[in-house]
Amino acid sequence: MRRNKKERQQLLIETIKQNPFVTDEELAEKYSVSVQTIRLDRLELSIPELRERIKSVAEKKFSDEIRALPLDEIIGEVIDLNLDDNAISILDINKEHVFKRNGIARGHHLFAQANSLAVAVINDELALTAKASILFTRSVKENERVVAKARVKNVDHTNDRSVVEVRSYVGNELVFKGEFEMYRS
Amino acid sequence: MRRNKKERQQLLIETIKQNPFVTDEELAEKYSVSVQTIRLDRLELSIPELRERIKSVAEKKFSDEIRALPLDEIIGEVIDLNLDDNAISILDINKEHVFKRNGIARGHHLFAQANSLAVAVINDELALTAKASILFTRSVKENERVVAKARVKNVDHTNDRSVVEVRSYVGNELVFKGEFEMYRS
Repeated sequence: MRRNKKERQQLLIETIKQNPFVTDEELAEKYSVSVQTIRLDRLELSIPELRERIKSVAEKKFSDEIRALPLDEIIGEVIDLNLDDNAISILDINKEHVFKRNGIARGHHLFAQANSLAVAVINDELALTAKASILFTRSVKENERVVAKARVKNVDHTNDRSVVEVRSYVGNELVFKGEFEMYRS
Repeated sequence: MRRNKKERQQLLIETIKQNPFVTDEELAEKYSVSVQTIRLDRLELSIPELRERIKSVAEKKFSDEIRALPLDEIIGEVIDLNLDDNAISILDINKEHVFKRNGIARGHHLFAQANSLAVAVINDELALTAKASILFTRSVKENERVVAKARVKNVDHTNDRSVVEVRSYVGNELVFKGEFEMYRS
């Protein structure tokens, strides 16, 4: 349904507040307007490019928290983290992530995002991947944004292992699922 | 056992002929001499840096053969390939592949080598990874050479799937094992 500009901008503010990871493309589709219109809306409303805002907040917040590796070694941007519990990161799929021939994201980039998040969520100085089972459930294309959500299922201090489950989404669609068994010190 | 120079150089020639993937470091250990000595031996014997030699031969040979992706999209260097049967690639682990903190190779690089070899070995224009089970059996360190060996276990044309098993070694030690279920067109 198309709305007038004032209505749309009001809804835009609320939508972004509820879901800070929403892209201009998703907003454009939601309100049946062009991406250009959404960008102009954001300019008028003084909402900066969201990714930049999230990034600077995240960098301050998480570089002190993450223990198992430096923040800049994580593939994707961490936007939420609770050690030994859960974590979220985003990865924007660009030209360098896809097969030239068909524009489909290469599996190892989705794996790298998920695996490094599984390392980051471990509350330990040392975390190494022992084993993983992964599933690619739908192809990811250039310009899509992948949101990876990690959840620590099991912290077993007796045998120095933890199991981390990671599910990655584009919008609401599951694109990747992985279970990582991690060594910890 | 230390040998005199002439003996050692003769053995060197034979060893390299038998195993073209051998590194200077492995040769040095084998003959209880320094890496520097092996390099001087190679210079005297006019054996070029092996990697360069293998690379140029491989590039000519395989760029025509591989169907599922261009040669330059493969992580590591393909040194042997028989479509829908088996393939071998090597990846030298450098600074950019390891965790800064402990010099251990990051899992996604070993995964990327194995996964792209699993794609390359498929005799089809389209090959996408559907599923993978992987095992990291020992940590790989900076300056080690990983030799990945892929074997197509099962080509099922009725459901457009193939299973590719990849085992990666440093010297004789298994460092990674993966089973990849591939979609094909």
